[in-house]
Amino acid sequence: MAAADDTRPVTDTDALIIGAGPVGLFQVFELGLLGISAQVVDALPHVGGQCAELYADKPIYDVPGLPVCSGRELVERLQQQIRPFAPGLHLGQEVCALRREPDGRLRAETSAGQVFLAKTVFIAAGVGAFQPRRLRLEGADALEGRQLHYSTDTLPDAPGEPLLILGGEEPAVQAAVDMAEARPVTLLHRRDAFKAPAALLARLAALREQGRVRVIAGQPLALHLQGDRLAGLDVLDADGHTQALPATQLLARLGLSPRLGPIADWGLAMERKLLTVDTARFETSEPGIHAVGDINTYPGKRKLLLCGFHEATLAAFAAAERVFPGQPIHLQYTTTSPKLHERLGVTPAVD
Amino acid sequence: MAAADDTRPVTDTDALIIGAGPVGLFQVFELGLLGISAQVVDALPHVGGQCAELYADKPIYDVPGLPVCSGRELVERLQQQIRPFAPGLHLGQEVCALRREPDGRLRAETSAGQVFLAKTVFIAAGVGAFQPRRLRLEGADALEGRQLHYSTDTLPDAPGEPLLILGGEEPAVQAAVDMAEARPVTLLHRRDAFKAPAALLARLAALREQGRVRVIAGQPLALHLQGDRLAGLDVLDADGHTQALPATQLLARLGLSPRLGPIADWGLAMERKLLTVDTARFETSEPGIHAVGDINTYPGKRKLLLCGFHEATLAAFAAAERVFPGQPIHLQYTTTSPKLHERLGVTPAVD
Repeated sequence: MAAADDTRPVTDTDALIIGAGPVGLFQVFELGLLGISAQVVDALPHVGGQCAELYADKPIYDVPGLPVCSGRELVERLQQQIRPFAPGLHLGQEVCALRREPDGRLRAETSAGQVFLAKTVFIAAGVGAFQPRRLRLEGADALEGRQLHYSTDTLPDAPGEPLLILGGEEPAVQAAVDMAEARPVTLLHRRDAFKAPAALLARLAALREQGRVRVIAGQPLALHLQGDRLAGLDVLDADGHTQALPATQLLARLGLSPRLGPIADWGLAMERKLLTVDTARFETSEPGIHAVGDINTYPGKRKLLLCGFHEATLAAFAAAERVFPGQPIHLQYTTTSPKLHERLGVTPAVD
Repeated sequence: MAAADDTRPVTDTDALIIGAGPVGLFQVFELGLLGISAQVVDALPHVGGQCAELYADKPIYDVPGLPVCSGRELVERLQQQIRPFAPGLHLGQEVCALRREPDGRLRAETSAGQVFLAKTVFIAAGVGAFQPRRLRLEGADALEGRQLHYSTDTLPDAPGEPLLILGGEEPAVQAAVDMAEARPVTLLHRRDAFKAPAALLARLAALREQGRVRVIAGQPLALHLQGDRLAGLDVLDADGHTQALPATQLLARLGLSPRLGPIADWGLAMERKLLTVDTARFETSEPGIHAVGDINTYPGKRKLLLCGFHEATLAAFAAAERVFPGQPIHLQYTTTSPKLHERLGVTPAVD
């Protein structure tokens, strides 16, 4: 929580959107049509959420009007659609606190230290913020950021110091290839088979050939500690034998998993880890805080993209009443409304 | 209503959809994903409803994932999307009666004499059935189908008999060009300027040149009757003078206008000419009869395509409970479900 002498700059906004997945992006669009500009925060370093993270190359068949579309293509189409409304994007950070100010506005703080004061908030957080999957071994938490890392950002720049990388997919292989330039690398995965683009696998093979990357097939069993320092890792190999690997720096690239995170602590009414909303405004138990997409629940709810788009639309109209108090909020059509054409930056031919 | 000795063939169906606009088409898709096949009826001779009739060439900007799309393109995309589910299409006819059978099924009869027995019904009728705009002059109703026509279908095949065509847009011009082959044609419009494709206008100009089509600028004022027979039409010309045109056959092509029609007579709960529905099943006051798209109303309702798509989706899940009683209806994803891939007729690459 911010202390009274907090001097961090504050971003005032009509709307803060938590989550830059497809529904969060479309929320920008519907708010934009109503003349409301938005700031968007997402835990991932890129927009697209689950669609980009889990379905980038997989086909989606049930978006109305798009008979088939990959997750990546859908995200690109939505980015193009919201371009006229140029939202502020704040990626790679999580909203870690949300509380109401005495004047009724909502104050949000992110893990990167950004502060927003928003008239309305839209939680479009899907299944939660995507976080690196943690290494579940005793003592791991205490080592995090010192000798156990989930990103190369926190890894000390110590050329020559051996590095043990855990994981079998592209992020692990990419890290092994990148790190092998400066230090001896061991790559540990349950079997000697990796899932990554062919060109990257070829680079890994070459580095193995040169002896600059060693691959060990096995599963981590226990951390070896000397006092509070990491000294090694016990590994169970394919033959059922335990092998002790020396290690002073671990980089775990075990994939991402969603975590509801601090949202559960904001005092909003929930039901089985989902935010309960009404079906007219898609508002949570807190006025001005809406929840849209997979994170909400209401009678009949189905976790589908097209339902999230509908929810974002009705939530935008409800928010407009709060942002423009006392003004009537009319439905206008993008096909015919000159005001919407102006907001969209288009000039359709007239008859 | 059908008499007891009615011998017309009856089509049994799990789902009858009234209206082949975008929402009715997407209703086919969502039912199809759940393994429910559908029959679709529409008053227009083609699918697409308002989108095809009023917005065919106009841009729509607010369908999620389609930054810009004409009404025609949207309809084509939806037709492609529902192709795996090959619905029965019954066009150019209106559902004129709907009542419940003793066994609980719903019996629908169309203006073309078709009869359906349906487990579930989806009213996706938008602003109503599109009907030819009527000539509002005293005595007009009594002449309809005899000497006053709204379609060439009812026009007697009487070569040589003069024909007076009313209207200024493509359907009127097209009719003038087509009819001029066999009979003298007069085309009446409020001014001597017509809205039609250039090629068609060129054909009209050529026929005027040849004296086979005469154009009169003016507005219909009154019908001249001799007994119960049409003899002529009084026309107010641009100079404010009244002119009497002899006429024994009139073809009025004054455009289409939507009409709620018989839906209002089915005993369903309504509010300001809209069908009231709940927001979990989008069901009307009659079990098994759903209403989706612009024709329904509920708290928060916005008449937008994307809202209709959501409504059709939840209505399909509700209908599945009725069509497959006692069976659990699970949400499956088109990206990952082998059963949905089979229904869609696709075989996505596996990892």
